[in-house]
Amino acid sequence: MTSPLRLGIAGLGTVGAGVIKIVQEHGALLAARSGREITISAVSARSRGKDRGVDLSDYSWEDDPVALAKRDDVDVFVELMGGEDGPAKAASEAAIAAGKHVITANKAMLAHHGQTLALAAEAKGVNLRFEAAVAGGIPVIKTLTEGLAANRITRIMGVMNGTCNYILTRMENAGLPYDEVFEEANQLGFLEADPNLDVGGIDAAHKLVLLSSIAFGTQVDFSGAQLEGIGLISIDDIMAAKDMGYRIKLLGLANMTGSGLEQTMQPCLVPYNSPLGQLEGGTNMVVIEGDAVGQIVLRGAGAGEGPTASAVMGDVMDIARGISLAVFGQPAKTLTPAKAAKSNTPSAYYIRLSLKDATGVMAKVTTALADAGVSIDRMRQKEHQDDAAPVLIVTHEVTPAAIEAALTAIKATGDLASTPIALKIVEV
Amino acid sequence: MTSPLRLGIAGLGTVGAGVIKIVQEHGALLAARSGREITISAVSARSRGKDRGVDLSDYSWEDDPVALAKRDDVDVFVELMGGEDGPAKAASEAAIAAGKHVITANKAMLAHHGQTLALAAEAKGVNLRFEAAVAGGIPVIKTLTEGLAANRITRIMGVMNGTCNYILTRMENAGLPYDEVFEEANQLGFLEADPNLDVGGIDAAHKLVLLSSIAFGTQVDFSGAQLEGIGLISIDDIMAAKDMGYRIKLLGLANMTGSGLEQTMQPCLVPYNSPLGQLEGGTNMVVIEGDAVGQIVLRGAGAGEGPTASAVMGDVMDIARGISLAVFGQPAKTLTPAKAAKSNTPSAYYIRLSLKDATGVMAKVTTALADAGVSIDRMRQKEHQDDAAPVLIVTHEVTPAAIEAALTAIKATGDLASTPIALKIVEV
Repeated sequence: MTSPLRLGIAGLGTVGAGVIKIVQEHGALLAARSGREITISAVSARSRGKDRGVDLSDYSWEDDPVALAKRDDVDVFVELMGGEDGPAKAASEAAIAAGKHVITANKAMLAHHGQTLALAAEAKGVNLRFEAAVAGGIPVIKTLTEGLAANRITRIMGVMNGTCNYILTRMENAGLPYDEVFEEANQLGFLEADPNLDVGGIDAAHKLVLLSSIAFGTQVDFSGAQLEGIGLISIDDIMAAKDMGYRIKLLGLANMTGSGLEQTMQPCLVPYNSPLGQLEGGTNMVVIEGDAVGQIVLRGAGAGEGPTASAVMGDVMDIARGISLAVFGQPAKTLTPAKAAKSNTPSAYYIRLSLKDATGVMAKVTTALADAGVSIDRMRQKEHQDDAAPVLIVTHEVTPAAIEAALTAIKATGDLASTPIALKIVEV
Repeated sequence: MTSPLRLGIAGLGTVGAGVIKIVQEHGALLAARSGREITISAVSARSRGKDRGVDLSDYSWEDDPVALAKRDDVDVFVELMGGEDGPAKAASEAAIAAGKHVITANKAMLAHHGQTLALAAEAKGVNLRFEAAVAGGIPVIKTLTEGLAANRITRIMGVMNGTCNYILTRMENAGLPYDEVFEEANQLGFLEADPNLDVGGIDAAHKLVLLSSIAFGTQVDFSGAQLEGIGLISIDDIMAAKDMGYRIKLLGLANMTGSGLEQTMQPCLVPYNSPLGQLEGGTNMVVIEGDAVGQIVLRGAGAGEGPTASAVMGDVMDIARGISLAVFGQPAKTLTPAKAAKSNTPSAYYIRLSLKDATGVMAKVTTALADAGVSIDRMRQKEHQDDAAPVLIVTHEVTPAAIEAALTAIKATGDLASTPIALKIVEV
């Protein structure tokens, strides 16, 4: 057996505590499987005194994560602090510069600085691993980078934000409006300090762009992703979708087209009984499609102490076993700059309009749709509520551009009582 | 870029042809991702003249796979011939002895000789990889061995024989009896030369025992697995299960208990709308439960040219990238001999009896059940058909031993018109 692999852990929240528990409880198992003892040399967090349910007395304490990252007795710096910049980035850079491997669960940092960090790590010959950054306990980074490495990846789809999925399924199951469930989720501590990271689709998009980079050999490009949150989804939308055999999910989609890389994170309708449609609560699902393998579906817990710690420790085990890989599956200097393309893949759409109660309004709407080339598959006007009539439309396959043109024209009529919504229908 | 990685491929059926296509069509992609060119030096198969839809003219031909395995210009021997013993084993052994890595899709060979081959490979310092042997294109070996390496695995479940799943779903969807669908599957070329490998659960059990070895750190133990095929499942069972909200699947289950390793492969009832219940046709699903990660579900094509070739090439890419691992996740010499335990995990059961038409028969049956400690949850007697009355029973949770005792007692009454069946109900 070779020398122990020594960890330095910065960030002792839920995940950090989970990692420490695995190291403490599964010592023999980890050593049997990796051929090395896994130890913890030092830890760091904002507050030293806090009880985290784990015994830290054997580990050195560092107030400064940068100092932790550079310690001589640390082989692997485990970054679990979070945050796009600040200490997480400073300490990760320091660790790489000092020749340490880095393992991180920080999708925000990688979505913005992944390329720079990968170049630095590869120049230094150290590993930068981030299984825990995407879809919690599901080993999706490994599956995509290694298991499916011989495939040209054709499409990635995923429900990767448990909070949004909780809100949407809770609205449906309890028949509650968005605002009420949002408040409930907040009380339960499910939301990030900036809730827009969750409900605005930002967190999920951070994850999607990391998968895209591996799948398509492009530099991580968060700015090129199109985002739409779940804030406009009403209980009426959810129930109308259900009536038609669909469920609304915050769905990420990435594919490479002739005009460039399409990356979207937006609420979509998926078939109610499909694997994606059946997801409840905090469960995540990632669908990967490759030219040889066809469709692979991965499902598991997207967050939480155990699942996320399992992913972090999977990376630790790889390093202990001497597995070394380019950060995004091929050397960062060979990744091509992503050329962001606005999604133009045609699909059916669900449209909800709230029309003012006046003569000739419906004629104007249907004319606007026809003029934009949007063909109606099904349409239903419900009874007037407060002088407005909700109209639900399902279109035949059209491009997002046509939908956008139609909505612009409809808004211009001045006959809408509130903001219209249009959601892609994805048959999976 | 380092020197090319040179393959020698023995067996040019569907999968062999698929592997060659990937190497020929994705050269640049494979090299970009692995840092090495992947080439094919030589191939071998039973018949040289056959048209396989791929151009073999650049490769040397060997009639003898053993000679292929030992060639100086081969770094990795890819065994795609199949068969528990014979040429597949001889050539794999020869390759290992000659210091070549071996990649195989051969579950039968590994289920019977996995431990011996692993010891040989590890003593020689070469890799023996078998992603393609289990669940086709799903990277389940990698997920279990690497991604979930920090978990104590608590249970493995899987539907891993596409042919059985095809037969069962086809019976249901077309309302056809077993014999007819079996014949249909045979005509379609879905069945192995020895159909019992499929419908007897042997092929699926070969796969299960490989997963068990990795999950529980035990030597592969096929002889300790309990097998039951699908031959006794009638269309009545399928429809009765459906009525109650279940679907019948040939389900593998492995878990480690205080008394030893339980490995069963048998038809079970699973909830109709669960991920396992919703599987159609040749799709495979593996469910892995770990103490940290919770439940991970993996779904994908269980067979076919592209998916299986994707798995073989995933192993090739690992070797090209210099990834080296113990065959079953920890050195073979540290794997403990499996102590096979007869499954004694309690569950609800579905029982179908065909009772002779005579007075007092039902009283004898219910008494036998009560005497064995089997408590009835639901029971239905259907109308007599040909002097026999089908009786369908769902029990409360009982042990397999109690079910066995009850069935033995019921058979002893002499009142059964045909063989009874008892299927475990697995809530997943």
